Amino acid sequence: MKSREVVVRRVLLGQGSHAESDLVAVEEPLEIRVEGVPAAITMRTPGDDLDLAAGFLLTEGVIDGSDDIRALATVAENTVDVRLSEGVPAARARSADRAMYATSSCGICGKASIERLRCHFDGVPGWMPEAHVLARLPDALRAGQGAFRSTGGLHGAALFDATGALHDLREDVGRHNAVDKVLGARLRADTLDFTGLGLLVSSRAGFEIVQKALVARVPVVVTLGAPTSLAVEVAGAAGLTLIGWLRADRWTVYAG
Amino acid sequence: MKSREVVVRRVLLGQGSHAESDLVAVEEPLEIRVEGVPAAITMRTPGDDLDLAAGFLLTEGVIDGSDDIRALATVAENTVDVRLSEGVPAARARSADRAMYATSSCGICGKASIERLRCHFDGVPGWMPEAHVLARLPDALRAGQGAFRSTGGLHGAALFDATGALHDLREDVGRHNAVDKVLGARLRADTLDFTGLGLLVSSRAGFEIVQKALVARVPVVVTLGAPTSLAVEVAGAAGLTLIGWLRADRWTVYAG
Repeated sequence: MKSREVVVRRVLLGQGSHAESDLVAVEEPLEIRVEGVPAAITMRTPGDDLDLAAGFLLTEGVIDGSDDIRALATVAENTVDVRLSEGVPAARARSADRAMYATSSCGICGKASIERLRCHFDGVPGWMPEAHVLARLPDALRAGQGAFRSTGGLHGAALFDATGALHDLREDVGRHNAVDKVLGARLRADTLDFTGLGLLVSSRAGFEIVQKALVARVPVVVTLGAPTSLAVEVAGAAGLTLIGWLRADRWTVYAG
Repeated sequence: MKSREVVVRRVLLGQGSHAESDLVAVEEPLEIRVEGVPAAITMRTPGDDLDLAAGFLLTEGVIDGSDDIRALATVAENTVDVRLSEGVPAARARSADRAMYATSSCGICGKASIERLRCHFDGVPGWMPEAHVLARLPDALRAGQGAFRSTGGLHGAALFDATGALHDLREDVGRHNAVDKVLGARLRADTLDFTGLGLLVSSRAGFEIVQKALVARVPVVVTLGAPTSLAVEVAGAAGLTLIGWLRADRWTVYAG
């Protein structure tokens, strides 16, 4: 259940108000444990929790692929536990501070610089999707995102190929979670090679979206919203193709 | 500088493309230190950094008011350090994990429940703004948010009073940061009494937005976007007024 019914009061200026039911996007906390130890809590939309946990651990640098996971399971309500394969240092996850961890893994420190960021990402060979492919992506995403239409509150993310077909579409109240779910689904299917694929996201593109794509080596990121300055800089430095403001008849190429 | 010029390629389907300059919202990391020790890194739009740090420490439960701060200063590029007054336990900030910290302070744990959340927030006496006041807020926010119009990438947050006047408007690529900046500005001015005021936010209302309002005891939250299920539940349980989908001629009351 990605949406939930609530009773609300609709107000129309000058016409009073009336009670009716409305659908809102479900948001609940998910605790991600590594070897039984809490590593992070994220506010997410329930569903695809194992994908989310796998994708989160991938993009945070705790694991590099499906081989690093020995077991991954829901162990309690809103709680997922991952057991790592022998030799994978759980300390990377246990070392605490999610925010510090997430960012320190990309070389951001007190005196952050793009130069430092750059050396932590290998280049990714971006490619340019054909115009007719890009033009159909907004409709495809809208068609796949049933819950957004009803709640207006869920971000969608999916992979697309050179023909414009969408794969692994996932939704979440958090855009970072939606992306982690997509990447985690691929990790769990052991199909982490993103050659010829792009990542489509319904939201804006901040640094973290581009970071997640780079960690997973996804060569193209396309968003319906605006990018930030850091997203543009990092994408440009890494060779990733970054397209924003995607509409059926127009878009803006920020990098690549 | 909240926006930055980048050279992009605009594509119009069937009409080719041309290079032009575009404005994007600036996103850079801010490291918040407590007593010289890194406590969090947040990706933010530069500007109002001291407000952001103060608001962050308030809504994360590290400090309760301006009396708890001995000194607050930018100590290096993208780095703010706060020195706490005698008797304020820095351990609350040092205890690590930003995400764990942020949520554990609200009682979310592995087996999260609204019941546990509820006992950590005192009730807040919500009030209902008059219709003609609500009706003018979207225009007022738009008028105040110069940078959004140019970049499409900045969230705005502000306080409004019973006459509809806006106060302490702040912008950021992150909606949580925009709210922290507003609350931090009030903390630094030692005007943390929010009686008769409401918080206006340009984005959706997730749990964290409502949480921040409750920690600061802001009685009304109004957003232009959709709320999540948890935002509605927590607002309802605490007595906070929560209004979503605000437009000049219509809106939806989710709680209060």
